[in-house]
Amino acid sequence: MLFSDLMDTNTKAVILLSGGLDSATCLAIAIDQGFSVHALSFHYGQRHSFELQSARQLAHKASAAEHKIIEIDLATFGKSALTDDIPVPQHTSDSEANAIPVTYVPARNTIFLSYALAWAEVLQCYDIFIGVNALDYSGYPDCRPEYIESFERMANIATKSSVENNNTLKIHTPLIDLTKAEIIQKGTELGVDYSNTHSCYNPDESGTSCGECDACALRIKGFSEAGIADPLPYQS
Amino acid sequence: MLFSDLMDTNTKAVILLSGGLDSATCLAIAIDQGFSVHALSFHYGQRHSFELQSARQLAHKASAAEHKIIEIDLATFGKSALTDDIPVPQHTSDSEANAIPVTYVPARNTIFLSYALAWAEVLQCYDIFIGVNALDYSGYPDCRPEYIESFERMANIATKSSVENNNTLKIHTPLIDLTKAEIIQKGTELGVDYSNTHSCYNPDESGTSCGECDACALRIKGFSEAGIADPLPYQS
Repeated sequence: MLFSDLMDTNTKAVILLSGGLDSATCLAIAIDQGFSVHALSFHYGQRHSFELQSARQLAHKASAAEHKIIEIDLATFGKSALTDDIPVPQHTSDSEANAIPVTYVPARNTIFLSYALAWAEVLQCYDIFIGVNALDYSGYPDCRPEYIESFERMANIATKSSVENNNTLKIHTPLIDLTKAEIIQKGTELGVDYSNTHSCYNPDESGTSCGECDACALRIKGFSEAGIADPLPYQS
Repeated sequence: MLFSDLMDTNTKAVILLSGGLDSATCLAIAIDQGFSVHALSFHYGQRHSFELQSARQLAHKASAAEHKIIEIDLATFGKSALTDDIPVPQHTSDSEANAIPVTYVPARNTIFLSYALAWAEVLQCYDIFIGVNALDYSGYPDCRPEYIESFERMANIATKSSVENNNTLKIHTPLIDLTKAEIIQKGTELGVDYSNTHSCYNPDESGTSCGECDACALRIKGFSEAGIADPLPYQS
């Protein structure tokens, strides 16, 4: 082994890795850009914790420098079909397409990015990746470009690093202008194995996707439009 | 009992309550301003978890509408004397007074305010109180007025409420321009029982304050300058 192999001289980045299709693609993009990735996942009382198994597999296969899963208790505040007993809706009708979905978790990305910021400071790294995209931001306020920019501005005056070193922390959103089909095409080019990803809000006990919820519907449509076969099996 | 007693018609506010002198005063101010207070504390691997006992007492005595203690794992990221094995420093010399203290916890207020934002949204409330003050913000970047303003701007575009209702979320910092002595004077006027507060970073096993760490030194000096007796006993 060469000495150079012992030193990871790549620039570090923290990446939010849910285990879904978007974050898997975002991870591949960060690696393709030459970053040494420190992956961060959350167990937040979500119904679909099969995601976390996918996150572990993705981080392992991508040779992430580190992968942390943080236990957080968003369920204590309630008000989301993803953490509550509210039924998860089936595929949203067109008339509801611009409404904020009931699967919205209050301030979720703000909390996730705050943890990423804490870890980035400890790692002395100034790059955070999050896989938000255009399809999300019609419905989720904390996926919009103006939200991400505002978080970035806040983050740059929030930390010891920013004060001491005047470093510019960057929130990377490489998927922000992509459709689901474009994300799948990009990830496929980069060799993402989408059989290691999980999208369904309502999987059965074995983790098999329902094929009916909003997340499955978006995924199925995305693969169809990309002209690529979805490697996941579905219940229906 | 009158019907009106059954209805809490006061405006709700979420308040970050550490159990220290500052947050106890901030709680009293929020109540004095007529808010129905929903107190939020964190168990974040801090050495000085006696704070949380104080937070419980303060919330109970102030008749808070609700008090939640959230378990979060900042220790997983390390790099602070408050959660690590780094020795807690004794009273800082004047030459070090403007440096960022090693007791700084990465992105702590950003994480705390993010949880407060999540709870505020669920409660449909638009007021968050945090007891940061002038003494802190020379050392802690996330206590500075410009940081709080930036967080507030971000919060106002982060949530479903802000999008749907165009509500203006306000981060209240009633202590921000006060010295420790002024905080103690203000709290005393409002009837705060400072024997229910905890400031020490290095208490003994029974919770008795050391009288030597930075937090004790600031507290002792504050009471002295306010001309008010500190009701807490000290080890030394």
